[in-house]
Amino acid sequence: MTGSKSLPANLDAALDRISADIDAEFAQLLAVPDDARAPLYEAMRHACIGGGKRLRPLLVCASAKLFNVDYDAALRVGTAVEAIHVYSLIHDDLPCMDDDALRRGKPTVHKAFGEATAVLAGDSLHALAFEILAQPSVHADPFIRSELIQCLALASGPEGMAGGQIMDLEAERSSFDLPTITRLQALKTGALIAASVEMGAILGHVPAEGRVHLKGYAHDVGLAFQIADDILDVEGDEALAGKALHKDADAGKGTFVSILGLKRSKEQAQLLVDQATQHLASYGREADLLRSVAQYVSQRDR
Amino acid sequence: MTGSKSLPANLDAALDRISADIDAEFAQLLAVPDDARAPLYEAMRHACIGGGKRLRPLLVCASAKLFNVDYDAALRVGTAVEAIHVYSLIHDDLPCMDDDALRRGKPTVHKAFGEATAVLAGDSLHALAFEILAQPSVHADPFIRSELIQCLALASGPEGMAGGQIMDLEAERSSFDLPTITRLQALKTGALIAASVEMGAILGHVPAEGRVHLKGYAHDVGLAFQIADDILDVEGDEALAGKALHKDADAGKGTFVSILGLKRSKEQAQLLVDQATQHLASYGREADLLRSVAQYVSQRDR
Repeated sequence: MTGSKSLPANLDAALDRISADIDAEFAQLLAVPDDARAPLYEAMRHACIGGGKRLRPLLVCASAKLFNVDYDAALRVGTAVEAIHVYSLIHDDLPCMDDDALRRGKPTVHKAFGEATAVLAGDSLHALAFEILAQPSVHADPFIRSELIQCLALASGPEGMAGGQIMDLEAERSSFDLPTITRLQALKTGALIAASVEMGAILGHVPAEGRVHLKGYAHDVGLAFQIADDILDVEGDEALAGKALHKDADAGKGTFVSILGLKRSKEQAQLLVDQATQHLASYGREADLLRSVAQYVSQRDR
Repeated sequence: MTGSKSLPANLDAALDRISADIDAEFAQLLAVPDDARAPLYEAMRHACIGGGKRLRPLLVCASAKLFNVDYDAALRVGTAVEAIHVYSLIHDDLPCMDDDALRRGKPTVHKAFGEATAVLAGDSLHALAFEILAQPSVHADPFIRSELIQCLALASGPEGMAGGQIMDLEAERSSFDLPTITRLQALKTGALIAASVEMGAILGHVPAEGRVHLKGYAHDVGLAFQIADDILDVEGDEALAGKALHKDADAGKGTFVSILGLKRSKEQAQLLVDQATQHLASYGREADLLRSVAQYVSQRDR
């Protein structure tokens, strides 16, 4: 759709390219209709276009690049994953959930469009993700499309992201130990990050047994990402992050930082990045982008 | 999964069979895990098991029966459609949407489990629907699975159900004319009803051009269903319906009844049933169940 045919090897350039291309994909997918559904599309555009690290689409495309998958196909899959991610943010920000007013430096969807529209915008993006993946433009082989859909549905449902979110709600009432918090985060953010990497490999016709190292990489990156998020919640700059911080401590919620302390959390994140990189040992220079991503997620400031 | 291999031709018997089998499917799919995700699964079970007309699974199975599709496969697809339907009810009942306390004669999910869990239970069922359809047990041919997924995603997203729901929100602020209300309802309830019939045909390997009459049937049945719903809202018995009634008039919302009046609404529903039946003219006795469904939806008391 965008005509761009490859992903730069440099991380910053790749992030810029992905961000521009994901914006363009959403702009095209979410053309505002000239009828009473306009507010729904406006709300989806507000949430989907502009801002966002686009980490998950980057992981899809960087993983797909290992197997010489066409960039446009990987971008479409990345758009589907990002649609799931954005829907989860919209619902997570709702008053009955985290009750956030600011996201990616803008008012949250329910602040800008009302709660009911926010619920429906999230639901619509959820359906859109699977609609994208079912289309032949993603891959000519319906077996691949079906595998992509199964992977994304598992990662986003009760055995993945949504399951992690309910544990997160419980975490405010119970004091979870480190293994339980690790599992919570592996589901809440890890599952979709792992699915992103795995879907790149699925696009590349890599059978399940060939995805073991990539899954190990993704698992470690996902956990490092979450530890960095917990560190950011304590040390970060709200203006730079574009959202409210210091919320976990205020809520008395157990996090990696509250259990391990800042110093050990940072060491743990670096350990995970090293481990993630080791999982890529059998890949050559073409995996450099995935290696850079691992460093990036553990050292981000937003 | 249930071992039952065919659908009775008699409507009441078919509804009883489908209801029992859908309950059994959900009971198996939603086994409560022994971890902090238990409340999420309890909430999904509360919403999915027991009660509900199961009209959409019935339509999938009755349509599939025309093409000699294995009942268990049709039942699995029907379970996916019902998962979408139930998720939409959970979200529709939320305080920020219709704010309903009663559904299918039980407390709504947010009343019983809290709003955050209700949002997540809806989201989880949404993902579950696509997870079911992506599994080879639904159909060995991934092309068929991919077509089923595309059909369901389109029908439930912004170009279908969710689009109709946003129009429904707007309807409380604007006074829509009959064509706009017809389009609203065609999206809000009609799209998923039409998808149910179409998915039965997809399972039966019927190409798009062979589904024209079935789509015509489904369109008319969906509209008759909604007119009956509007009539029920005025004339119905809350105890029998298991939900609050008389809400549209209280909200001053335009409906078929508020525009056409009761008498003409009933005539219109009957006209649509006759039209729906005519769309089945090329099918023989094996379409009797679909014919009975058309009568049933226009004359229901709950």
